[in-house]
Amino acid sequence: MPPPCSEDVVLSCLAQHFPLAHASLLLGRGDDAALLKAGRPLCVSSDLFLEDVHFRRSYFTPEEAGHKALAVNISDMAACGAQPFAFTLCLGLPPQTDMVWLDAFYSSMAELADKHGIALAGGDIAACERVHIAITIWGGISPSGVFLGRSGSVPGDCLFVIGTLGLARVGLRMLEAHGRSALRDWPCACAAHLRPTPQIDAGVMLARAGANARPPALMDISDGIARDLRRLLHADGAQYSQTAPQGPGAVIRLPERLLHSEVRRCAEDNKQDPVREALIGGEDYALLGSCAPDMLAALKTAVPGFTHIGEVTAEPGILCNDEPLEDLHGFDHFDF
Amino acid sequence: MPPPCSEDVVLSCLAQHFPLAHASLLLGRGDDAALLKAGRPLCVSSDLFLEDVHFRRSYFTPEEAGHKALAVNISDMAACGAQPFAFTLCLGLPPQTDMVWLDAFYSSMAELADKHGIALAGGDIAACERVHIAITIWGGISPSGVFLGRSGSVPGDCLFVIGTLGLARVGLRMLEAHGRSALRDWPCACAAHLRPTPQIDAGVMLARAGANARPPALMDISDGIARDLRRLLHADGAQYSQTAPQGPGAVIRLPERLLHSEVRRCAEDNKQDPVREALIGGEDYALLGSCAPDMLAALKTAVPGFTHIGEVTAEPGILCNDEPLEDLHGFDHFDF
Repeated sequence: MPPPCSEDVVLSCLAQHFPLAHASLLLGRGDDAALLKAGRPLCVSSDLFLEDVHFRRSYFTPEEAGHKALAVNISDMAACGAQPFAFTLCLGLPPQTDMVWLDAFYSSMAELADKHGIALAGGDIAACERVHIAITIWGGISPSGVFLGRSGSVPGDCLFVIGTLGLARVGLRMLEAHGRSALRDWPCACAAHLRPTPQIDAGVMLARAGANARPPALMDISDGIARDLRRLLHADGAQYSQTAPQGPGAVIRLPERLLHSEVRRCAEDNKQDPVREALIGGEDYALLGSCAPDMLAALKTAVPGFTHIGEVTAEPGILCNDEPLEDLHGFDHFDF
Repeated sequence: MPPPCSEDVVLSCLAQHFPLAHASLLLGRGDDAALLKAGRPLCVSSDLFLEDVHFRRSYFTPEEAGHKALAVNISDMAACGAQPFAFTLCLGLPPQTDMVWLDAFYSSMAELADKHGIALAGGDIAACERVHIAITIWGGISPSGVFLGRSGSVPGDCLFVIGTLGLARVGLRMLEAHGRSALRDWPCACAAHLRPTPQIDAGVMLARAGANARPPALMDISDGIARDLRRLLHADGAQYSQTAPQGPGAVIRLPERLLHSEVRRCAEDNKQDPVREALIGGEDYALLGSCAPDMLAALKTAVPGFTHIGEVTAEPGILCNDEPLEDLHGFDHFDF
């Protein structure tokens, strides 16, 4: 039987997975605060990853939960063209959590952190009814690159995505309906939901491309393109306004052949429009951006998975395959 | 009737309290990550503040919850001698949260942030059964100071505290037993629990004193001096070890007259030892530290509330008022 949880046992398990010393840190964990090496502007981002909101323990292995909690934060760095180098981890754990679960969780998170050279700089733990994870991550802009914000799209710019659309949503749906047995028939969709891959290399390439030209506007798609494309187009301050936004708008084309075969198969089985499903599907952590038309050819060649999907327009509103997108909203945490 | 929660309404409420532009930020919220001005090493710290673990909505006003969530993070900066300048806020909210509650919560947090010149740099929100707060905070060391870590205590050093001991514990106890009516008979104790004051000025003064001498070791007392003094003495790596620590140890003196009158009165009412209660009382966010003996007189004069309580010894173990402290453990989140 695995040993029970205590604060010291949890911290001791953590220490086995994440080294105290790291090239990104002047002083690591164990003090009241960590001390980062920070000679230039830093990107920072914080995200929640909550049991029964963002994941379920019934079909997430601890390895997958540990991987995804960090991966979604790394994706925010990718969406800025930044290279992540440190993070903090706040972890609420049910007191009955066993050390086997915790060890697997930390182990997988540490593996992903290692792969990207990211140090754990600190955090907090507390007893909690469900597993609650809040991660803050830091990244730096590569010397040859720029920070890629969401803002800056102008009419005439080309819109692009890097990564799959709607695949994680199919995975979520199948895992909710069938648990892990869904992995047999929907392996790619389930993997997209359980173990997303942040697009760090693509982000860094786009940041480099932006150093000698007008930089692309960029974000990651966490709530579905229907919702997130509006955020990209109106990133200059209007995205939280309660009134209908003015321009710019967009015309996009999403032919069915661009969609993953599991997205098409799922829509067919359920007599749904696969394009609509792809537009409202969040959590793929694909990148969505816009760039000047004269940058398009070079990016298509340089960035694996780069897909040109449309143009920014002066007129407000979004058309997808000639249909207005007004009735599609993507994911809202407080919609019930 | 207050308006219901939606993600946009929550963000719009947040925007009313925390400005997007701030001297600490090159780029503020609304993008995938914020961009900090960071020309030198940074202190970072992350803390959880969870409903029914760290606070109860039954007797915390939203103003008090907002204040305390940020204050405990500011206290971590104080414990490093750092000046906080930015934070991120991850907020899990029950969907039925009304905007009156949220507005008061943000308002009080923004007031405390303003007082210390701290920018909100980003964060996340999600629907959650209970109010779940995770804050990450950044601080810089003042040009004339040094980072004050927990480590470095050597035998012969003087031990000191700045702030009250055990007062917040009395407040917690009374609020748990009597709700807000406890404020009438235990005003200082309740205030210590509901609205702690981080000791930023004292931390900065100690950091300055450390610039031209061996710097004091410093931490804030979050789990009680019985537990936290061990962490201070063994901060050089042994604090998470499962085996009994070797030296250094300490001899401390806590005469009853040093304790707040409400701590003494509560112990008397309950036929308890007030010193023992003060030793295991956490959450006062007092500072605990050690310094070289030749620094003592200057610090006593310069730092309001500075109280000399004992000495570091070469022998392991802690004696308080000639009694060994071995059986006192302070607060552990996973002890039940």
